Amino acid sequence: MAIGGAEDKIKGRALLTEFVRLAGSEDARIVIIPSASTIPKERGELYTGIFSELGAGSVQILQLATRQQANAAKAARIVADATAVFVTGGIQLRLISLLGGTAIAGAIHELVAGGGVYCGTSAGAAAVSSHMIVTGREGMKIRRGMVDLAPGLGLISHAIVDQHFSQRGRLGRLIAAIGMNPQFLGIGIDEDTAAVFHADSTMDVYGAGQVVVVDASGVRSTDVHSVSKTRPFMMSPLQLHLLNEGSRFEFTRRRVITPRKPAVVQRKARA
Amino acid sequence: MAIGGAEDKIKGRALLTEFVRLAGSEDARIVIIPSASTIPKERGELYTGIFSELGAGSVQILQLATRQQANAAKAARIVADATAVFVTGGIQLRLISLLGGTAIAGAIHELVAGGGVYCGTSAGAAAVSSHMIVTGREGMKIRRGMVDLAPGLGLISHAIVDQHFSQRGRLGRLIAAIGMNPQFLGIGIDEDTAAVFHADSTMDVYGAGQVVVVDASGVRSTDVHSVSKTRPFMMSPLQLHLLNEGSRFEFTRRRVITPRKPAVVQRKARA
Repeated sequence: MAIGGAEDKIKGRALLTEFVRLAGSEDARIVIIPSASTIPKERGELYTGIFSELGAGSVQILQLATRQQANAAKAARIVADATAVFVTGGIQLRLISLLGGTAIAGAIHELVAGGGVYCGTSAGAAAVSSHMIVTGREGMKIRRGMVDLAPGLGLISHAIVDQHFSQRGRLGRLIAAIGMNPQFLGIGIDEDTAAVFHADSTMDVYGAGQVVVVDASGVRSTDVHSVSKTRPFMMSPLQLHLLNEGSRFEFTRRRVITPRKPAVVQRKARA
Repeated sequence: MAIGGAEDKIKGRALLTEFVRLAGSEDARIVIIPSASTIPKERGELYTGIFSELGAGSVQILQLATRQQANAAKAARIVADATAVFVTGGIQLRLISLLGGTAIAGAIHELVAGGGVYCGTSAGAAAVSSHMIVTGREGMKIRRGMVDLAPGLGLISHAIVDQHFSQRGRLGRLIAAIGMNPQFLGIGIDEDTAAVFHADSTMDVYGAGQVVVVDASGVRSTDVHSVSKTRPFMMSPLQLHLLNEGSRFEFTRRRVITPRKPAVVQRKARA
């Protein structure tokens, strides 16, 4: 589950409620990893309070400030015993340089492979991809040089996830990222909006905003390889899927699948 | 010819040079219509100076401040005698409420039908479409209610043209505009960038920025008709074509056609 950041933590809490439900509700054993944040203690306590109020069975914070801590067998066992891991927002590079290749990262992979839940918001959402957007420029002046990639946790291997999407004008950098290798889908998630990735290669959208899927696999003409990274490139055609709450997307055929309920009905049903 | 506004008027003047060439160079009879502008006198004189310096045979300003003036037979004859009309930037609604349905608008249609050249920049570019974007919100929070349309001059019947495109983050409003009726292509033109529409249903791109074509004709799933105009809608799939200098787009098959020269070569050839 990838949340585009700034999820409602006070009123409806729809996305965090859905996470606790997926984690098992009263049977949930949730581990919070606030390592991306510059105020990890406060972040950990904030989410602990919310998940407890939402009825999670148990909630534990893993404060990992060094790679040694992220490699400790004890920490990995805590993740192995959990039903769900929640990774907070903060700085992508801080998160991945701390966790990448550690025992904790391995334990998260095994948890997900065994049917457990990973949920990341903001930086925690960006980190789910194999190829993660670390930094980039805002706006639609699309240039190859507007985005920087780094390896991510790799829980999703077929897509690059971006967050705070329409709020920070990130379609340009997502197109620049996937334009270099159309093998990957781009998935841009708005604030207070979530994409839930299922094992059967489908994705469901929840929340107040939009999820945009960009697919460059059908590109017939491009000069992205021959144009300077600071100048506009040509690329045609790209496919764009605008999704909202209630949308279900299938990765195998790269299309929206029906039936889906109208957004309003869906919203009421979940309230 | 539609220029996305803010074209280079000082250094290379590449786009205005191309316009004067299309208008006939020393045989050109150019009529400038600065009616969209709040400072029409200054705008008219500025472009008169530029076109004369670029070698245009004759340049004349038509100062039209009322619909009566735009309906005067004498003014229409001046357009009929021209090889090209140049419409400046300013306020779209000012332009179209002044010219719409007048003798001048009729004369412009006949000029173009007879092989003459229409060139508009900014508001003058927006006005070429049958359906013109009058106002809209910036950014990628795509909502049906983010854009207002009005009838335009209708020189191009198959597309809606938007301008100052990536500079003002207008992809969202263009998608909102064409999403309502996928019959129309959306064409977003950056500043100092031009789309030249030919009679054979092709379009060439010139200039420093990008032209984005949005095609909703292949949409299979949408809820745009049932979602409130202030909430996100679902729409899948849209096609996006990113074009740069040297790109040629064909409207019949809605695709980029080759051969095209690499942008750098093209640039040198035109310098």
